[in-house]
Amino acid sequence: MITKRKVAIGQAGGPTAVINASLIAFIEEAMKDFEVYGISNALQGLVENRIVHIDGPTFQIAEKFWNVPGAFLGSGRWSMTSEDFDRSIGHLRKHDIHYVVLIGGNGTMWACMELARIAEEAGYELHVIGIPKTVDNDLGVTDHTPGYASAARYVAASVRDIGQDLLSMRNFETVRIVETMGRNVGWLAAASALLKETNEQPPHLIYLPERPLRTEQFLTDVSKVINTIGYATVVISEGVCDEAGRLLSETALNGDAGPKVLGGSSQFLARQVNECLDLPARSEILGMNQRCSQLAISITDLNEAAMLGREAAILLRNGVCGSMLTLLREPNALGQYHCRISHCRFDEVVGHERRLPDEFIDSSGRGVTQPFKDWLRPLVGDDLQGYPQWRYS
Amino acid sequence: MITKRKVAIGQAGGPTAVINASLIAFIEEAMKDFEVYGISNALQGLVENRIVHIDGPTFQIAEKFWNVPGAFLGSGRWSMTSEDFDRSIGHLRKHDIHYVVLIGGNGTMWACMELARIAEEAGYELHVIGIPKTVDNDLGVTDHTPGYASAARYVAASVRDIGQDLLSMRNFETVRIVETMGRNVGWLAAASALLKETNEQPPHLIYLPERPLRTEQFLTDVSKVINTIGYATVVISEGVCDEAGRLLSETALNGDAGPKVLGGSSQFLARQVNECLDLPARSEILGMNQRCSQLAISITDLNEAAMLGREAAILLRNGVCGSMLTLLREPNALGQYHCRISHCRFDEVVGHERRLPDEFIDSSGRGVTQPFKDWLRPLVGDDLQGYPQWRYS
Repeated sequence: MITKRKVAIGQAGGPTAVINASLIAFIEEAMKDFEVYGISNALQGLVENRIVHIDGPTFQIAEKFWNVPGAFLGSGRWSMTSEDFDRSIGHLRKHDIHYVVLIGGNGTMWACMELARIAEEAGYELHVIGIPKTVDNDLGVTDHTPGYASAARYVAASVRDIGQDLLSMRNFETVRIVETMGRNVGWLAAASALLKETNEQPPHLIYLPERPLRTEQFLTDVSKVINTIGYATVVISEGVCDEAGRLLSETALNGDAGPKVLGGSSQFLARQVNECLDLPARSEILGMNQRCSQLAISITDLNEAAMLGREAAILLRNGVCGSMLTLLREPNALGQYHCRISHCRFDEVVGHERRLPDEFIDSSGRGVTQPFKDWLRPLVGDDLQGYPQWRYS
Repeated sequence: MITKRKVAIGQAGGPTAVINASLIAFIEEAMKDFEVYGISNALQGLVENRIVHIDGPTFQIAEKFWNVPGAFLGSGRWSMTSEDFDRSIGHLRKHDIHYVVLIGGNGTMWACMELARIAEEAGYELHVIGIPKTVDNDLGVTDHTPGYASAARYVAASVRDIGQDLLSMRNFETVRIVETMGRNVGWLAAASALLKETNEQPPHLIYLPERPLRTEQFLTDVSKVINTIGYATVVISEGVCDEAGRLLSETALNGDAGPKVLGGSSQFLARQVNECLDLPARSEILGMNQRCSQLAISITDLNEAAMLGREAAILLRNGVCGSMLTLLREPNALGQYHCRISHCRFDEVVGHERRLPDEFIDSSGRGVTQPFKDWLRPLVGDDLQGYPQWRYS
């Protein structure tokens, strides 16, 4: 009897709306060559030996989750210590698993790299592949990251809708400050401008982590918009910092003791508008829906997430490892959007948080350029349109 | 030359995702018999004489907004004084407008009733029709109100998605408290349970304005869920009050001086969970997207909003007035969902805020019944599904 090789896969970090597409496409393809194991809560499950065989019936259940947001295997955050790596390799050794695939972001790719390195030092043969995933889109080398396009679609549609709502209500409300995810990068906040076609349309101002925010300048910016347009829809990334590099606001999930999460800058700025400009301002935090709204899933995103999952299994079959998969944009002969799958070494992405490049930020620093919109448009889908511009009176 | 009779239409209160469907269907039908005028910002525009003829070219623009959230004419809040009514009637008299249609909620129907009464007292012939609109669904007589179904769809999908996300992240986060709109009624918060099929699925607890919330009981409820399921997705309506009838939280748009808006109870409760149960809890306010998300529009809602707009024009043509239009649920011969349009007197709805009836609230007071879900299902559409239940480990 020939024993199949064994591969274990985990989903790490915050889930996305399409992370299960990568998982399920991987399992489906990998099952042809491997016995597939799932790792609960990714890194934590690796450390705690929560590694479970995915048999036929389990896969039949998993398949139903292909377009369901959240992570089928359980995801979550976990900081790996060197002891954790040793324990993980111990568990893999016991299971006789020599192939590991992790779907995740920057921290996960670092863990992949370290896992491979420490296994090698320990003389344990281990092939590791990383499948990129993050709504923040902060991974390098790849053109973009699965999960980002759906989140960007949510942000673009929401800011268009919230701005249109404010236009209707401007006899009652003057300023809305919409806060997006993104950690230290402005990709999601920038996506809010995708459907903006004229100066009048929202968002009127975008504050990105790539540029420091001075509160006085912010208040001047808002005043200018109020004076010309009469109301203001403002977008701010959760990761925006002041000139000293301090986050505008940082809140804790569990008081001061609990794990830190970003968010709340919009509330700080709304208070500033209240107090300094004496204008009614509302803070809107787009929240978890950005990364988990099934209604906002981009078909392109879903397909690419699945493509990468499948490719990870093919790479393992072909003996490639030590790599993170990437999407390389290569328009077809007609100039239409197309991505080719490639891969890069972990050390090419680890530790490099890809920020929005200068050519995607306009000269004011509070808006985006047309090249950014041209870059983003095919990712979120052509079906998402801006609204006609019209102000009844 | 025969001069056409003149009708003016306005959109009042907070916009919905389908309020423009009512407007545009009305204009299209009314133009056959009437010269149609639009009132900017509804009641405020009536008082300030911002009444503009909707000619052919303007209608061609308006048509493009049929499925665009926000109010094409401008909406907003405005408290009418008796002087305001007199001024409004003065403006209508100058324009020779004897027909007025307002799309709005409870306050708007009161304004319709008063406008008709004061015009009659002043000896000015005025025919007034009200088209219901509110995401809160708090109007009586009608089975439901246009705008509610799309908002309910947004809430149902969001709580399903946010709950699935939390299930994936429960090694990091334990409690999410999702806050819905709804003012003093629980219809929107209740909608969060539409896609829940098992105890394990979200939401695990729903707090409705129809039942007082005792903080101690709330903490006990959350503890019980944590002990059995391990994490908790909680939904709270913005209008929930304590036993003394005080709102859990009330925030102001413009400090203490500005107009009051509801919201923030979820933040208060998240802090309680932090401090008293020592668990990480996150507050999620679903915000404006509930009433303006184009991605969440229910086709049933859109069609019914348009049907009511058209019917308003037909009623005026037939000489009916002093009425608010209603939707009466009358299943067809096969038992399938169908609504017939009817109408009622303004005084039948004015001042009666329809709360969720007892038969729609379960015996615990923190969930809904199957009859409520059966009632809601056809409004939001059969295409919106729950997720398969599965917990990997």
